[in-house]
Amino acid sequence: MTIAPCVLCAEPGGELIWRDQRARIVWIHDAQHPAYMRVIWNQHVKEMSDLSLPDRAYLMDLVFRLEQVLRATLQPAKVNLASLGNMVPHLHWHVIPRFTDDPHFPQSSFGEALRDSIHRIENPDAFKRALIEEFK
Amino acid sequence: MTIAPCVLCAEPGGELIWRDQRARIVWIHDAQHPAYMRVIWNQHVKEMSDLSLPDRAYLMDLVFRLEQVLRATLQPAKVNLASLGNMVPHLHWHVIPRFTDDPHFPQSSFGEALRDSIHRIENPDAFKRALIEEFK
Repeated sequence: MTIAPCVLCAEPGGELIWRDQRARIVWIHDAQHPAYMRVIWNQHVKEMSDLSLPDRAYLMDLVFRLEQVLRATLQPAKVNLASLGNMVPHLHWHVIPRFTDDPHFPQSSFGEALRDSIHRIENPDAFKRALIEEFK
Repeated sequence: MTIAPCVLCAEPGGELIWRDQRARIVWIHDAQHPAYMRVIWNQHVKEMSDLSLPDRAYLMDLVFRLEQVLRATLQPAKVNLASLGNMVPHLHWHVIPRFTDDPHFPQSSFGEALRDSIHRIENPDAFKRALIEEFK
């Protein structure tokens, strides 16, 4: 029997925006939610409460700073934050700016789409520069 | 025109387990996920990044301690954490212990159920006592 490796151990999991020893931020280029980002703990850890208190604070600081960049650059109606990991139990945060005209609003983006629409990023290059600037 | 009051300003939002000046923990007795809990910021604030740094840390500490109680008492396959608020933009965290035989596993609990099953709490009284003990 071969055991499939964890995809977040084997691969970056998206376009790498920033990385250090502990964590990384990736832009996943989701087809329905173009500014959908993830913050991934590098080590294969399952739950937030498996981290030390300083590591929890470190990871959440990245998540909240990312939220702030998304708010400042894209003015979303809401930002959704989620650590689920039922399919990939390797600690990662979904950070998803939500717009009233996106495919799922006001439902969660994890279920069926309500409409066939995409809220596009007006200036993807400026968006990427703002991300890199925040985390450099 | 009358403006509907925010439901989380008007009501506890579930069975109150613990409350202080800043936040509260409620057991929402969800029909599909019986141990589904929420941690609610008392003040009407929209996003995590609207809170001060100490308030962010305070709220997340409650979320992670709640996660630890759920893990210790219920041994879930995974704990799901989410701050969405697209419909009720009053800061609250969903803290959901997930089980391989629950209605949505391994999908998020926010979409359509995959099966007609409920993972029940074996001893709800002991579960409630453990929650109250942790936060007293």
